[in-house]
Amino acid sequence: MLREAVYHRPKNEFAYIYDEKTLHIRIRTKKGDAERVNLIHGDPYDWEEGKWLAQSIPMKKSGSDSLFDYYMAAVSPSFRRLRYGFELISEKETLIYAEKGFFEEAPLDDIANFFCFPYLHEGDRFRAPEWVKDTVWYQIFPERFANGNAELNPPGTLPWGSADPTPSNFFGGDLEGVISHLDYLKDLGISGVYFTPIFKAYSNHKYDTIDYMEIDPQFGDKATLKLFVKEAHARGIKVMLDAVFNHSGYLFEPFQDVLEKGETSSYKDWFHIYEFPVQEEPLGYDTFAYEKTMPKLNTRHPEVKKYLLEVGQYWIREFDIDGWRLDVANEVDHEFWRDFRKAVKEVKEDCYILGEIWHDSMPWLTGDQFDAVMNYPFTNGALNFFAKDKIRAEEFASVIVNGMHAYPQNINEVAFNLLGSHDTDRILTLSGDSKERVKQLFAFQLSFSGSPCIYYGDEIGMAGDNDPGCRACMVWDEDGQDRELHAFVKKLLSLRNAYPLLRNEGEFTIYHADSADNTLLYAKENEKEIIIGAVNQSESAKEIPLPHELRGKSGRDLLKDLDFAADSIQADGLSTQFFLYSKES
Amino acid sequence: MLREAVYHRPKNEFAYIYDEKTLHIRIRTKKGDAERVNLIHGDPYDWEEGKWLAQSIPMKKSGSDSLFDYYMAAVSPSFRRLRYGFELISEKETLIYAEKGFFEEAPLDDIANFFCFPYLHEGDRFRAPEWVKDTVWYQIFPERFANGNAELNPPGTLPWGSADPTPSNFFGGDLEGVISHLDYLKDLGISGVYFTPIFKAYSNHKYDTIDYMEIDPQFGDKATLKLFVKEAHARGIKVMLDAVFNHSGYLFEPFQDVLEKGETSSYKDWFHIYEFPVQEEPLGYDTFAYEKTMPKLNTRHPEVKKYLLEVGQYWIREFDIDGWRLDVANEVDHEFWRDFRKAVKEVKEDCYILGEIWHDSMPWLTGDQFDAVMNYPFTNGALNFFAKDKIRAEEFASVIVNGMHAYPQNINEVAFNLLGSHDTDRILTLSGDSKERVKQLFAFQLSFSGSPCIYYGDEIGMAGDNDPGCRACMVWDEDGQDRELHAFVKKLLSLRNAYPLLRNEGEFTIYHADSADNTLLYAKENEKEIIIGAVNQSESAKEIPLPHELRGKSGRDLLKDLDFAADSIQADGLSTQFFLYSKES
Repeated sequence: MLREAVYHRPKNEFAYIYDEKTLHIRIRTKKGDAERVNLIHGDPYDWEEGKWLAQSIPMKKSGSDSLFDYYMAAVSPSFRRLRYGFELISEKETLIYAEKGFFEEAPLDDIANFFCFPYLHEGDRFRAPEWVKDTVWYQIFPERFANGNAELNPPGTLPWGSADPTPSNFFGGDLEGVISHLDYLKDLGISGVYFTPIFKAYSNHKYDTIDYMEIDPQFGDKATLKLFVKEAHARGIKVMLDAVFNHSGYLFEPFQDVLEKGETSSYKDWFHIYEFPVQEEPLGYDTFAYEKTMPKLNTRHPEVKKYLLEVGQYWIREFDIDGWRLDVANEVDHEFWRDFRKAVKEVKEDCYILGEIWHDSMPWLTGDQFDAVMNYPFTNGALNFFAKDKIRAEEFASVIVNGMHAYPQNINEVAFNLLGSHDTDRILTLSGDSKERVKQLFAFQLSFSGSPCIYYGDEIGMAGDNDPGCRACMVWDEDGQDRELHAFVKKLLSLRNAYPLLRNEGEFTIYHADSADNTLLYAKENEKEIIIGAVNQSESAKEIPLPHELRGKSGRDLLKDLDFAADSIQADGLSTQFFLYSKES
Repeated sequence: MLREAVYHRPKNEFAYIYDEKTLHIRIRTKKGDAERVNLIHGDPYDWEEGKWLAQSIPMKKSGSDSLFDYYMAAVSPSFRRLRYGFELISEKETLIYAEKGFFEEAPLDDIANFFCFPYLHEGDRFRAPEWVKDTVWYQIFPERFANGNAELNPPGTLPWGSADPTPSNFFGGDLEGVISHLDYLKDLGISGVYFTPIFKAYSNHKYDTIDYMEIDPQFGDKATLKLFVKEAHARGIKVMLDAVFNHSGYLFEPFQDVLEKGETSSYKDWFHIYEFPVQEEPLGYDTFAYEKTMPKLNTRHPEVKKYLLEVGQYWIREFDIDGWRLDVANEVDHEFWRDFRKAVKEVKEDCYILGEIWHDSMPWLTGDQFDAVMNYPFTNGALNFFAKDKIRAEEFASVIVNGMHAYPQNINEVAFNLLGSHDTDRILTLSGDSKERVKQLFAFQLSFSGSPCIYYGDEIGMAGDNDPGCRACMVWDEDGQDRELHAFVKKLLSLRNAYPLLRNEGEFTIYHADSADNTLLYAKENEKEIIIGAVNQSESAKEIPLPHELRGKSGRDLLKDLDFAADSIQADGLSTQFFLYSKES
């Protein structure tokens, strides 16, 4: 077996606390190398030879990507302590892998040879709010969702949908508009609303905060937000706001004070100013990117931290919001996020903390910072396969399996799986205006694990390039909506909401990925039931073989709502079908 | 090149903040696979194609273990933000490795393909106290170091050194005894004393704490400790105490209260009691190992935490101690250690926090918990090579290089590198009573990086099996001491204290490791000087070739204090020599 390919290191995605009593242990080997893998384990203080070897258990192959196989086992050690190693078995050899390297036989002479998970502490467990697993989000860019109160329109507001969106125009979307469409969201099957910023700011996107303690008057006032949250909660819909703590807007009073008073300003340490008086050209202070209107906040400064943590608590305490989405979260220091988590969870223990991070995010998902990140690696994989035709079935399967093994399972269960946002091209546009491709995207996203999010308007077939194109006014006239697409999304959501297996229960397995045919068969299953997702991502009809145990078996076609039994699946071009089988005979 | 062998993931030992301005980036490849590796990098917000490729810099090969080569580069990005990838070059191919996998050419079309170190925050930097890099520790088991005040002797105290140590006998060692031998330590070249516990406890080892706020009366009183610290500091010697926060002793008042009052005790939640009344047989509460006299403390309980954090602050505030060694540190929750660090650093910013962890410890060395751990992987490698002859030169070189790459460099610089302790056989005993082997151990330990520690008596050739054998009374009669060994250790320490290169300055490189001859040539070097360590670990004389650039060059034999110039090194069996060369011509 290829020793260089074997990887395991404790206390990350390879060994973690899953629940109060359970550890998950994973290992990576070269693809196709091992026939099976066993986990040898025992208590660190009770490890006579015989006992340890008797505690060897088989690990389950949890997936393969293009280079590696992954194996996992769940263990619940009686005293919450674990020492362990791996027995890697191929036809030709058996190898033991442990902390001190590779051995021919289990190195039972010294416990120090083994990996250690010293103690399963409840306090060290990654704990995201339970409700997130069952939530489907809907992202709203408030300036463009619905104009419910024309009196709040900023000067120069254009008639709704009368023009293409630009970086600076306004259409008067507001909170009353959203309230009046809560029933639309409820009907669609949505259970959480995520707003891009609503605090007082200068631009139409409101990422340049002027006052973190005020609602932007164009969107309404605090009473309206209270009403919104109440109405949303009454419909079982959670509410998440966007916090921009990496930087403020140019017009944020403390920054204006520093511009004006320079070194004598009592806010002079709130930012990262190189020298006084403050220079704007060349840039004399840290900013978001090179954007001089977005001065970077000094989140290590005690007053800044105190202020921002109070912001974090205030909107929960006073308005009962359920989550914070944190803008540019990766550029703020970890210490700040640790304190932020404590402050927020103190006010509402099951508040969801979601970081905007586009890249690999394990350092923020260690249980002491975020509950989840925006899962752009999922997004990219899904878009490349379903929308852009840039990768084929096997590569997509590899991306998905690789992503699942980049994080612990309890992190995957609350991952914020989006297909598009205010920062990307719209999925219809990325799909070359192919509605069928958009349907494929939704079918996969809404049957996969995590906490999916729909960007407003994608469900009715809105198109648009990246900012500003993706920020057009929501189309409310049903004649302008793709009602068939809407019905399809609604059907998918009703299935997801009805079947826990389509959410985060059970195991995800790829049964079949065929790049030549560009077909994919995946399953979500528990002991009682299995749901098969059958994807034909080619443009022509294909036959997709079913696993032996399901051939001829009676099941149910979930999208057609019809009984189903066959040896293989006849799949139209660009189609996804779902089949439910009971495992009880 | 073997793709399965390539490993990099940001924000751990492969990508970390080294100092205020510098990131270290490392990558792992299959041993012998790449000819060279370049780091392609740039600002995340400024990455036009040409600029990024122009910023490609060569990485230095920082070592090889038995399976892998390691490469590293230091970068100081202007805006403290970095996106990057690796160019792996062999004779046959050039591969790009980045977050999204392997590419034939740098995937400059999408910044998201690259690894990200989003921001170099001073607050996220691993920061251990500066003084630790230059400290040599001496571990004292206080009951057995020196009896300075017979009036404090507990009942049944035996005359000093009159019997073998047992788990329960007493010889009356105390703080006054240590004070009276501070000059001995100073003369030896010691700059830090680490005491096993001195708080009030029942046993001779005092790991079963009765009162964390009192000195054990057998050792002295608080005035004596104050005097000790003052006298130590006057000699430039730091003081570290041992904190047993994982568990208390059986006689700890809160535990006695729980035993007595059961569920009505106000301390009932201070421990992990399964049910009331408390059962001792079978064990009805969590303990250290299965030791019923050591009940595990509930460090998540606010009162327990408050009490223990106050202990952590009290002995610094009132007695000016410089470090805490944390017993069974791996079995206490991470959250507790995060709060402990804050509490301790608030009182003394440069207090050293050292965890007792015998295994791989990265999860505790993330900057928010410990400054270092007891580096038993180093210990095991050194003992297996120098003392036990279990591994040969190449395997030892592999263990050392592997260890260096298991952690960031700034962690290695303060690693607590010990050869033995109160929990191991004495090094002379492990060496089969070969003093030459003991000298080899010391020569390597005291010329390697980190913060080395000498276990009391090892420097004068005391022998003994693991506990209780290793806890004999220190021999003060010079006739009973190996004075020649003592002089050798003193010489090594005088060299270490004189030459920063022998401490933590410059780079460590293994120039040559020959398992057949069992010889090793390693270097510590900076731009100006190089010190060569030449080890012959065989029992017969060997010739060790010098690197080309040093052949015939004039240098200095540091142990003999003589000028030296040769083409190769003539090395007696079981010997180590040090040669200093200037790089300036």
